[in-house]
Amino acid sequence: MIHHLIADMKEGMEIQQYFMVREVEPGHTRNGEPYLTLVLGDRSGSLKSKLWSNVLKDFPGPFRVGDYVAVVGQLRPFRGELQLTVQKIWTVQQIRQIKQELKDFDVSLLHPSTPYDRAMMWRDLLDLVDQELSGPLQELVLSLLQQHESTWQLAPAARRIHHAYEGGLLEHTWFVARLACQTARLYPNLNRQLVVAGAILHDIGKLKELAQPYAPEYTVTGQLLGHIVLGWEMIRQAAVECHFPDQGLLLQLEHIIITHHGFQEFGSPVLPKTREAMLVYFVDDLDAKMKMMEQHLQADTSGREFTPYHRLLQRELYQLTEKPETVPPEEAPEAD
Amino acid sequence: MIHHLIADMKEGMEIQQYFMVREVEPGHTRNGEPYLTLVLGDRSGSLKSKLWSNVLKDFPGPFRVGDYVAVVGQLRPFRGELQLTVQKIWTVQQIRQIKQELKDFDVSLLHPSTPYDRAMMWRDLLDLVDQELSGPLQELVLSLLQQHESTWQLAPAARRIHHAYEGGLLEHTWFVARLACQTARLYPNLNRQLVVAGAILHDIGKLKELAQPYAPEYTVTGQLLGHIVLGWEMIRQAAVECHFPDQGLLLQLEHIIITHHGFQEFGSPVLPKTREAMLVYFVDDLDAKMKMMEQHLQADTSGREFTPYHRLLQRELYQLTEKPETVPPEEAPEAD
Amino acid sequence: MIHHLIADMKEGMEIQQYFMVREVEPGHTRNGEPYLTLVLGDRSGSLKSKLWSNVLKDFPGPFRVGDYVAVVGQLRPFRGELQLTVQKIWTVQQIRQIKQELKDFDVSLLHPSTPYDRAMMWRDLLDLVDQELSGPLQELVLSLLQQHESTWQLAPAARRIHHAYEGGLLEHTWFVARLACQTARLYPNLNRQLVVAGAILHDIGKLKELAQPYAPEYTVTGQLLGHIVLGWEMIRQAAVECHFPDQGLLLQLEHIIITHHGFQEFGSPVLPKTREAMLVYFVDDLDAKMKMMEQHLQADTSGREFTPYHRLLQRELYQLTEKPETVPPEEAPEAD
Amino acid sequence: MIHHLIADMKEGMEIQQYFMVREVEPGHTRNGEPYLTLVLGDRSGSLKSKLWSNVLKDFPGPFRVGDYVAVVGQLRPFRGELQLTVQKIWTVQQIRQIKQELKDFDVSLLHPSTPYDRAMMWRDLLDLVDQELSGPLQELVLSLLQQHESTWQLAPAARRIHHAYEGGLLEHTWFVARLACQTARLYPNLNRQLVVAGAILHDIGKLKELAQPYAPEYTVTGQLLGHIVLGWEMIRQAAVECHFPDQGLLLQLEHIIITHHGFQEFGSPVLPKTREAMLVYFVDDLDAKMKMMEQHLQADTSGREFTPYHRLLQRELYQLTEKPETVPPEEAPEAD
Amino acid sequence: MIHHLIADMKEGMEIQQYFMVREVEPGHTRNGEPYLTLVLGDRSGSLKSKLWSNVLKDFPGPFRVGDYVAVVGQLRPFRGELQLTVQKIWTVQQIRQIKQELKDFDVSLLHPSTPYDRAMMWRDLLDLVDQELSGPLQELVLSLLQQHESTWQLAPAARRIHHAYEGGLLEHTWFVARLACQTARLYPNLNRQLVVAGAILHDIGKLKELAQPYAPEYTVTGQLLGHIVLGWEMIRQAAVECHFPDQGLLLQLEHIIITHHGFQEFGSPVLPKTREAMLVYFVDDLDAKMKMMEQHLQADTSGREFTPYHRLLQRELYQLTEKPETVPPEEAPEAD
Amino acid sequence: MIHHLIADMKEGMEIQQYFMVREVEPGHTRNGEPYLTLVLGDRSGSLKSKLWSNVLKDFPGPFRVGDYVAVVGQLRPFRGELQLTVQKIWTVQQIRQIKQELKDFDVSLLHPSTPYDRAMMWRDLLDLVDQELSGPLQELVLSLLQQHESTWQLAPAARRIHHAYEGGLLEHTWFVARLACQTARLYPNLNRQLVVAGAILHDIGKLKELAQPYAPEYTVTGQLLGHIVLGWEMIRQAAVECHFPDQGLLLQLEHIIITHHGFQEFGSPVLPKTREAMLVYFVDDLDAKMKMMEQHLQADTSGREFTPYHRLLQRELYQLTEKPETVPPEEAPEAD
Repeated sequence: MIHHLIADMKEGMEIQQYFMVREVEPGHTRNGEPYLTLVLGDRSGSLKSKLWSNVLKDFPGPFRVGDYVAVVGQLRPFRGELQLTVQKIWTVQQIRQIKQELKDFDVSLLHPSTPYDRAMMWRDLLDLVDQELSGPLQELVLSLLQQHESTWQLAPAARRIHHAYEGGLLEHTWFVARLACQTARLYPNLNRQLVVAGAILHDIGKLKELAQPYAPEYTVTGQLLGHIVLGWEMIRQAAVECHFPDQGLLLQLEHIIITHHGFQEFGSPVLPKTREAMLVYFVDDLDAKMKMMEQHLQADTSGREFTPYHRLLQRELYQLTEKPETVPPEEAPEAD
Repeated sequence: MIHHLIADMKEGMEIQQYFMVREVEPGHTRNGEPYLTLVLGDRSGSLKSKLWSNVLKDFPGPFRVGDYVAVVGQLRPFRGELQLTVQKIWTVQQIRQIKQELKDFDVSLLHPSTPYDRAMMWRDLLDLVDQELSGPLQELVLSLLQQHESTWQLAPAARRIHHAYEGGLLEHTWFVARLACQTARLYPNLNRQLVVAGAILHDIGKLKELAQPYAPEYTVTGQLLGHIVLGWEMIRQAAVECHFPDQGLLLQLEHIIITHHGFQEFGSPVLPKTREAMLVYFVDDLDAKMKMMEQHLQADTSGREFTPYHRLLQRELYQLTEKPETVPPEEAPEAD
Repeated sequence: MIHHLIADMKEGMEIQQYFMVREVEPGHTRNGEPYLTLVLGDRSGSLKSKLWSNVLKDFPGPFRVGDYVAVVGQLRPFRGELQLTVQKIWTVQQIRQIKQELKDFDVSLLHPSTPYDRAMMWRDLLDLVDQELSGPLQELVLSLLQQHESTWQLAPAARRIHHAYEGGLLEHTWFVARLACQTARLYPNLNRQLVVAGAILHDIGKLKELAQPYAPEYTVTGQLLGHIVLGWEMIRQAAVECHFPDQGLLLQLEHIIITHHGFQEFGSPVLPKTREAMLVYFVDDLDAKMKMMEQHLQADTSGREFTPYHRLLQRELYQLTEKPETVPPEEAPEAD
Repeated sequence: MIHHLIADMKEGMEIQQYFMVREVEPGHTRNGEPYLTLVLGDRSGSLKSKLWSNVLKDFPGPFRVGDYVAVVGQLRPFRGELQLTVQKIWTVQQIRQIKQELKDFDVSLLHPSTPYDRAMMWRDLLDLVDQELSGPLQELVLSLLQQHESTWQLAPAARRIHHAYEGGLLEHTWFVARLACQTARLYPNLNRQLVVAGAILHDIGKLKELAQPYAPEYTVTGQLLGHIVLGWEMIRQAAVECHFPDQGLLLQLEHIIITHHGFQEFGSPVLPKTREAMLVYFVDDLDAKMKMMEQHLQADTSGREFTPYHRLLQRELYQLTEKPETVPPEEAPEAD
Repeated sequence: MIHHLIADMKEGMEIQQYFMVREVEPGHTRNGEPYLTLVLGDRSGSLKSKLWSNVLKDFPGPFRVGDYVAVVGQLRPFRGELQLTVQKIWTVQQIRQIKQELKDFDVSLLHPSTPYDRAMMWRDLLDLVDQELSGPLQELVLSLLQQHESTWQLAPAARRIHHAYEGGLLEHTWFVARLACQTARLYPNLNRQLVVAGAILHDIGKLKELAQPYAPEYTVTGQLLGHIVLGWEMIRQAAVECHFPDQGLLLQLEHIIITHHGFQEFGSPVLPKTREAMLVYFVDDLDAKMKMMEQHLQADTSGREFTPYHRLLQRELYQLTEKPETVPPEEAPEAD
Repeated sequence: MIHHLIADMKEGMEIQQYFMVREVEPGHTRNGEPYLTLVLGDRSGSLKSKLWSNVLKDFPGPFRVGDYVAVVGQLRPFRGELQLTVQKIWTVQQIRQIKQELKDFDVSLLHPSTPYDRAMMWRDLLDLVDQELSGPLQELVLSLLQQHESTWQLAPAARRIHHAYEGGLLEHTWFVARLACQTARLYPNLNRQLVVAGAILHDIGKLKELAQPYAPEYTVTGQLLGHIVLGWEMIRQAAVECHFPDQGLLLQLEHIIITHHGFQEFGSPVLPKTREAMLVYFVDDLDAKMKMMEQHLQADTSGREFTPYHRLLQRELYQLTEKPETVPPEEAPEAD
């Protein structure tokens, strides 16, 4: 049972593999027969599928969002996109209940997640903390990382748009921290410790703002307060707990968190008033935009020179059809 | 020694009374003689004055911002505005040191402050708490009022623009609370307790954002974090201290604080998403605008039909030259 | 024949009751059979229905927008929403023509209208005029109310968005007038008569801008000139007719009408330059926003914590799932 | 007594001629001597002048804004600009009272006014009405022109910025009407009569919005209502008076008046919804901008390649230092 | 085989004529039968058509965008719009291959193009060059017109929105040049040669920005650089080639090209700083808006008084239902 | 003759050293005596000075902007700032003419310039070209650097705001190139060669847009066309000259130049549509903002916690009064 990634599926394929259920919508045909539309997903994308009434009769489910399912079916074009006509379908739970073997079941294939190795990124962040920070800032950052280690490795960085997948927050944090650190090196008289600490912690409030890493959604608290103030409070409390000794330094760190959206219209109640805060705002925004573009370019498989319109970026992107010598991703640079 | 209010001063008057020093700027004439420009203030406005070198020799000060001074001098026009040529000047401290009597010295005349009676407003707010609130919301609001009673009665509501004087925060709170309460009465299914509590507490962070009620200035913390998040934290902490039992209700109250500027571009990181929060935003803004206009209209003594341009409101205001039957300010309505 | 409100309908229900026709769209199936899609409405919402060709043969109509119809049919889910499969359908006119009895026909159930009692609101407005106004302002307002009494009680306050139903203009006027009056009471030296008169008359131009209270639409004149200038002219003409004696006072009232959208980008050619005009702008906007939110919250029956996105408000609203002690709508306060 | 235009004055010149007083500001020197600063103007610009106390003693005035004065004095540089030290000064009124001869007194030299011949422009407009309009539109436009003939020939078109001088409204009307007419000729199916009538009448409300053609100022009515609605009402009333027979046509003309600022943020409560209205908006704006640039270029006599910053246009303008073959102004084209 | 224009088609018509294929979209019915949706076009509009599987079997195509096809079919309503059910279909190429006669085949009917005669417009432009320009500007403009004569007569002026059809660029150039020339005549001291040359050349970069006149699309170069800089370079190069002697004059011409969008937010990197550039910006924008409105009004055949919402103009347009005496399009004025 | 930097000057100092003349403004006192105001500058700032008539008599100059002068004088406070009363003054040219020795004359002290070593930065850029680029991109960049080597080392990067001093363009280029290169390393599949080449060349047009490195001013060409299009043309021409073989690659490089202001409202006619262009936009903007803040913080010597308002950044900046352990500027990292 080889897993075909949804992104690679083609018309006419016979499908026999696992998916995660992302949406469930029951319907009735005009002559009253019930059917189900399931949106199935794997880590590469999502796919509409239909369980017509004859199938539904034998495979009644129930199917809920988040269920893993084993599916047999066939891919057909419908209104310009592929659709899966399901012939057989069981939830993984059903298979387990009847003690069937779960052949080739690999959960990591079934929902989108960061393409980078999470353990490596985490280690790299800790190295950064070890090498760039010292004293109370090191202690504060370390205590927050350790306290939230498990959720931080799962959390997404957004509901949509960019890094909206498992591990997205860690990936984004890792990029922003490295960008901030290397950028700060170029400028004289910057407090680089502040920059690095602020960069690592800038989005910590998203641990409370977002839930369900596999299909990110706002929490009620996140909707009503936002991650900026939530993150600020987490840092204030951690500072109290570790008896942070330098109130002036702490205030500057808090200022970075509060201002990291750069402008009031983007949700920061105050503008960055230190160069350290300005720097963190820039590299945060830069990484978000780079990821947005990367995801939009990858999602477009039309073969055309320009992608469809990107609503947030308000433009179409250029697909470099003949990429010059391919450029391998850089190794994570050794902190020096 | 009768106090002439600065707002009522006229060219040619001989002045002999007290002022507060608001600005001090030393200078030299072209032939090298030192002189001092002092901006003197009382509760009705401010006035430029000059101590030429011959006067300065005999009354050397020193004069600092915030000093109360007894002044003898004469009012002259200079470049279109009145200016006081000082003939004699002592600080109140100097007078006290030489055991002179401080005749008619009345500090309440010497800096701007709310025109309303502070004790009355405070009592009125407590009545509102008593009559409109109950249970944990009542307890929370009361504990915050009591904890900050003395500073709240002095604090200004802004650095400039509106209510930027002693007692300004209390006056603004009193208006907003009454507006919110009576407005909420008209709408069905509103949680009026939430509205009233939110209205009373909405600007509590200004107690930490601003300092020096006589000449309001931002604190460093205020500049770097802003009163919205500072106020939110004060409420969160008070809620912990009084073991606030209903987290959902508390979250709605916090949402009112966080969103009370109405839009992100005005500094609220999140938009009002409940009717209660929308209502508090509106009446807060309404009271600020009404006061801005009132202060601008009063400050204009030109006798023209339109005031000078108001930079924030971006307009000139119309002076109703013949006000119909004067309308006495309403009594504070009895909470029912 | 009990009327089931559309808002309360559920899958599988057998329906036998009256509706108003809101939209008519003929179609053909792929094999050429004609069918009709009718959008049916009552005061609680609207519902798509289908007349397949077999039904259409026996119940050929014709059906036009605005017709009242008696319908027998069954509710089925279709693409995630309820749809009515019509089995029998007559227009009320047809029933009358054949002298059938119109059992339980209650037109007030069949289109949306203000939830408040119109006679009560009208009386309340007249009381306000009686108690708050005197002299020429009273005479002017009264003559305009009397002249337009019947249309004002039917007119909507908007084409969509808020108060877009029968009696909506009266409801909005009633709220704005009361808000304006009680707000004006708190501020000293305001001309409260002006405020109250301006609040009552601010939207009078909508009587000419909008037509068809059951399904509001712009008139040509309304589209080409807008209700602000139309209302201003109505007041100017009424002032001429009743020989309004005080041109300065009249000009201030006109200024309130012209500026009541608060900003040029919202359609006021001039900015509010008096406190009276500013106040009316604020309470008008406040009432519109409160109603928009109320309507959006009520229209969302998804059971989720946040409503769908509201395009004009640019946000999702929070449904307070567990409303604390329910708060009964206030009685209309007695004008004092 | 040759009149030197202010624009041509140079350091060191001895001056002996008439001016109009534009501003009066009394002052005192540091040792208490009174002096006067007068801003004097002629049609080419304005000039600061000083009457020191020794002069003031012999020529006590009084001098008021709007007075014509005969002056003897000398031009000196002061802080980078020319200033006139007055040696002798009489008002024209004083000279008349003592029966002195007013030698070479030519009021047309003493305040700014349109550089075009007013009689010619007025005749040209009447020709346009004669040749382009017919029927009720002709009658309506003609009656408004005739009714306001004298004020229209004096009125300015703005308080500042462009055409803010005597005859400015007529000049602007003349340009806009001709632009509109010739532009309309290029487009098929336009109602050119509407365009021409709308272009002639578009700014008629400025006759009520502005006062004092020599030093334009807003009227109270102009400030509180604006020229757009004032002009609309003038046209409505004239239409009633001449029993305008075609309400649909009249509405389209009114729409042109109401929308001629093109956008709500520029003060039109409604957007242009016909091509006729769009055309008038464009040529009105075009003529305003062309005049603004012409006036700014002419006012800059620095000899540099770029003018000072123009605040409304938000740019510096380029002075074409070597103008290619000079291009004579076109004759007013003959209406055909 | 009479050609029925798509704009005039009605339900039930039997169709037998030529079209151009604009879009091709294959699909499958629910039971797996393949079908084709073709969007067919002629110069008056476009039309959806279906080739169901039984037809497709006999007329397999292939059909590609840009193909001319002969079609037999029937017009039916589908979801509120007309749709063509195809019964027979051949490409023109197929007909030619089997040596069939192409009866009544007239390619000019099959795609949208300028309603004006291209030869006439071209001649008119050359006359303008001949009469208005002289010396190096004449030589430069002429050489560019001659060099691009054939493409300029085909090119569209935009991808959508306005003049997006064959000959659109020529039509737009012709209008803008005439508007600019006649407008410049009214203003003294303008360099009219510059204005006319700038007006003719302002959009020359669109020759490189856009491709496929029948269905305009951006080129890659156009998307990545934009027509403003592309046009500027074309003029610079042509100036080098014809040894343009006056660098100052050339710079002013280049400035007109670079600034002709009027504002940076509309894509001009620099603001117009000469009156000549300002004038060209205005008449360019005016012609674009007039065409947008004309096209939107013509495309609306609903018979209602207001068109559907125009997204770019952000308004609905008013259809003058009773157009007064029809106004014939003016003759192209004789350059004088 | 030790040079006191202007930034370190204090009231009362006796001054005897060289300056550069930055502004010259002649004046007359009230009793007609001529005097001169000279703004004198050195690399640390600028200073107003006065030559009263008694001094001017003996030291008549002439003094022109750009002259180096030797000055003897005394520092006095005037209206809150220091002013130099000149006692003796000669231009360096005068001293040379009379064969006097120019003791301690060091031109590098007399105007602002980059604080970094220009030879080092230039070498570093060449190393970057050597190590990061290859093939045609290397050849293109190298040829442009070599062609403009001498002007590039002198040119400023702006007229005001940031890097507006000698060597400013080189400093900014050096920072942006290093930021771009190290940032590109973190992202997979970027064309780093493009990024580095684009970063080095992005502002090359400023070599033509700005003149007078000591007191930067726009050229006429710069004002009328802007550095974006000027730089693009320089690259196009260099590409032609070195027979750049890959048109697709060149187009991407041009796209980076054209889009490097990121948004149309900031002067880029097209938005960045590749990640390479987005990256260069971000690091360019980041470096500009960091420098702006650094310059504003350094220019503020008030000793207060917040700087004066920065008009472009629209905020006050926070002066970290107690900077934690001072952080030495990083060495220029070795390109690896």
